[in-house]
Amino acid sequence: MQFGTVCIIGPGLIGGSIGLGLKKRNLAKTIIGVGHRIVSLEKATKMHAIDIGLLNSDEAVKDADIVILATSVNKIIDTAKKIIPLMKRNAILTDVGSTKKYIVEQISHNLRKDITFVGAHPIAGSEQRGVEFASADLFEGCTCIITPVGNHTDEVETIAHLWRLLGAKIKYLTPEQHDEILAFVSHLPHLVASGLINAIKEEYLVCGASGLRDTTRVASGDPELWVDIFCQNRENVIKSIDRFIAELGGFRNDLLNKNDAKILDRLKNAKLSRDSVFHNNSTNK
Amino acid sequence: MQFGTVCIIGPGLIGGSIGLGLKKRNLAKTIIGVGHRIVSLEKATKMHAIDIGLLNSDEAVKDADIVILATSVNKIIDTAKKIIPLMKRNAILTDVGSTKKYIVEQISHNLRKDITFVGAHPIAGSEQRGVEFASADLFEGCTCIITPVGNHTDEVETIAHLWRLLGAKIKYLTPEQHDEILAFVSHLPHLVASGLINAIKEEYLVCGASGLRDTTRVASGDPELWVDIFCQNRENVIKSIDRFIAELGGFRNDLLNKNDAKILDRLKNAKLSRDSVFHNNSTNK
Repeated sequence: MQFGTVCIIGPGLIGGSIGLGLKKRNLAKTIIGVGHRIVSLEKATKMHAIDIGLLNSDEAVKDADIVILATSVNKIIDTAKKIIPLMKRNAILTDVGSTKKYIVEQISHNLRKDITFVGAHPIAGSEQRGVEFASADLFEGCTCIITPVGNHTDEVETIAHLWRLLGAKIKYLTPEQHDEILAFVSHLPHLVASGLINAIKEEYLVCGASGLRDTTRVASGDPELWVDIFCQNRENVIKSIDRFIAELGGFRNDLLNKNDAKILDRLKNAKLSRDSVFHNNSTNK
Repeated sequence: MQFGTVCIIGPGLIGGSIGLGLKKRNLAKTIIGVGHRIVSLEKATKMHAIDIGLLNSDEAVKDADIVILATSVNKIIDTAKKIIPLMKRNAILTDVGSTKKYIVEQISHNLRKDITFVGAHPIAGSEQRGVEFASADLFEGCTCIITPVGNHTDEVETIAHLWRLLGAKIKYLTPEQHDEILAFVSHLPHLVASGLINAIKEEYLVCGASGLRDTTRVASGDPELWVDIFCQNRENVIKSIDRFIAELGGFRNDLLNKNDAKILDRLKNAKLSRDSVFHNNSTNK
């Protein structure tokens, strides 16, 4: 019960998994879910991801000790602005957005003195959306990046503690560091997956096997959600594209110049780096 | 028993799976495996992927009705040249190589009049190698491309029939068509996966989650094997890189020019195309 009343705005895949994780570990007194579709709130309630579902955030946030913004990134800032005036004294506001600089800037700018905002981003999820894919253990073993600003150490520690209890490893970064790193490890791979599909003629795609399927899996993610992520991290994403095109250009030159030893080096280097990070390599054959 | 004595040169992941598939369905009288490592031949024999394992191909091919070249692509041509003079009259020679134009050209050039070569490529496999990963059902539902040249309809039909019995769907293409298509659906994705890893700083990689893991899975494949595939399909791979860089450049321009509607279109288009091909989307969450 240590986190008191928790309000999850947007109990979908991520928000719903937080709810399930808190319930499973008995960490919250009450979990209030706020959504804009009755059917989703019903699902979330039936799954016990939330105790109560409300369509309006005004009522929902006023007694909450922690409010978690778990909507898509384009709605986080507007929702925050709307609820901050209504929040309980000394409550903590946090989020799970995939970008941090813009969100942290905008929310900090609109914050009340007695409310702390702790930007967070659990690096988990899938190309699927909706509470039906939520799981109490979604965050087990994942990294949760927390981007504290200022000196609210107790509140930052509360949110870090919550994520640790849900199974995540904590990494503290500045919002700027977060956005640069995520451009490379998440936004670029997404863009590359979509670009790969678009670069292949439709009639060729049917010859693709598990390699193509996995390389492009994230391209089945929600376009509306991803366009907002790209736009909130525009400069870093452009920078990552440039770095990647330079690498591809190197490959191309080595191929053109029949520098096969250099190509082998590139492949070996990639394998070595990847194998050192993803030990538990593959669930697909 | 309809395929008589089958000789599999290189009973690894693919060759071993052919052996297991033929045995399971009782389609061959004897399966002879040829390898250069005793330990692999022992494994293949114990798994019943082959009946006998031999280190030397000379003895192995002389009674075979069908010889299947299942080595890595760089050894297929040399092996073919070596065994063609020793093969039984009217036997069929086939392969499973990931490139076709160069292999078909070179083998056709060195063929005996009474031997038919049927180029084939089952589009299956993984980043893993070795007979220990072989499975009797590896080809269930996969596409096997067959690249006939000339008029040997009976022999082509025999090999197509073999693949159909192993569960594959047959697609007939010219060697040139095969190599162009595979450059896009297999070789480019591999190169992109390796390039992605190389474009990301080592210290950033640890922040990667399942999206990055899956997008780059194939980069854990064997570098020696893949460098040969790239080199045997050089021009098509370069062409596919150019097409892909153009697509990425388009994305980059739209980002730079804040043409967010266009980015949304690109993402929607990719999702639509991908979802129409890979229905059974993901085994990973």
